Amino acid sequence: MTLQAFDRNKHLYKNAEFAELVKDAVRFFNGTPVHELPPPESFLGTGVYALYYIGNNPMYVRYAELNRLAYSSPIYVGKAVPKGWRQARVSARDTTQSRELFNRLREHSRSLSVAADLALKEFACRFVIFEEDSSDMIGTVEAAMIKLSQPLWNTAVDGFGNHDPGSGRYEQAKSDWDILHPGRVWAERCKGEGTQRSIILATIKRHLEKLG
Amino acid sequence: MTLQAFDRNKHLYKNAEFAELVKDAVRFFNGTPVHELPPPESFLGTGVYALYYIGNNPMYVRYAELNRLAYSSPIYVGKAVPKGWRQARVSARDTTQSRELFNRLREHSRSLSVAADLALKEFACRFVIFEEDSSDMIGTVEAAMIKLSQPLWNTAVDGFGNHDPGSGRYEQAKSDWDILHPGRVWAERCKGEGTQRSIILATIKRHLEKLG
Repeated sequence: MTLQAFDRNKHLYKNAEFAELVKDAVRFFNGTPVHELPPPESFLGTGVYALYYIGNNPMYVRYAELNRLAYSSPIYVGKAVPKGWRQARVSARDTTQSRELFNRLREHSRSLSVAADLALKEFACRFVIFEEDSSDMIGTVEAAMIKLSQPLWNTAVDGFGNHDPGSGRYEQAKSDWDILHPGRVWAERCKGEGTQRSIILATIKRHLEKLG
Repeated sequence: MTLQAFDRNKHLYKNAEFAELVKDAVRFFNGTPVHELPPPESFLGTGVYALYYIGNNPMYVRYAELNRLAYSSPIYVGKAVPKGWRQARVSARDTTQSRELFNRLREHSRSLSVAADLALKEFACRFVIFEEDSSDMIGTVEAAMIKLSQPLWNTAVDGFGNHDPGSGRYEQAKSDWDILHPGRVWAERCKGEGTQRSIILATIKRHLEKLG
């Protein structure tokens, strides 16, 4: 093997077009129709989604204010990728014939509807389908949207997107989200010591003040 | 809230430029200098890397053959993202002032040097630094490269990139990679029943035949 002297600049990739492309996808996202949660009909596809809070819970009422004129401030942003994504066992067909995106939104709907102090009708959603070659954008667009709008349940309150850890793993603590919003059966089985509610509430307050 | 009728087409994002951009980044990657593992000096940056096998272990000798004329067939592809990436708590400075990429390559070097039947000098590496706005490409480029070259340790043999699960979690099984390559102290602590070695070897054989 012929080894070359180390030169950092030879390893540095720069391409300004990429940032433009991500901006275009985010702009498209923000122009898509808003729907109730879950969306009114099942559909095929993988992609990125955002949930918006529009209810009266005092904890989150700031979001309802921010979203009054336009859905600009999601409380949560997530992605639904094709099965086998992490192992790169994904064909173009997997991205068009999967119901991952709808299923993920329906799963979130269930989490919200069993939460003690939240109601499904206090939420709305947007989603964009990225299929075939475009499915490679899913992770990037999700990351960009989270960075841009710093949704509360992505950045300050952990656990909304969690799944049932499964038997043998209930020694772990309830997530901050589940401490705030008891309801999910599997979360109630988690026996570890979680964060104090007062600490989570203080974090939320600080975060919402930063959102302006 | 004004809800619109559901129309899937209004949620579908298409942009052919994106695929072109990813191809450009992969081309750049494949033109970067090859280095020994770990690279000869520490450097700042986050990004994507590939490891190439060039030794004589019969299990992997096919890779040494494939890489004889050009480093075209990685055995593993990975990413090193800024700290706080998942919570979107990343500033531009985090992408330029972090040593994540070098540290990740050094960590892999340690895994390989303690493995019973592998030697560090049987490996080479490539890496590309994506910083500031370009750091949003990291996940996409990693995914594209894995999809393209189907590296054995990403797609068929699980566990090379694992970390110490930590005390209280050693009831889990050793990963397939650790069963093949005993050495890492924390992996030897895992007590669960893992995959049979003969099954892992058969999977490897099948995978390498597909690589051609």
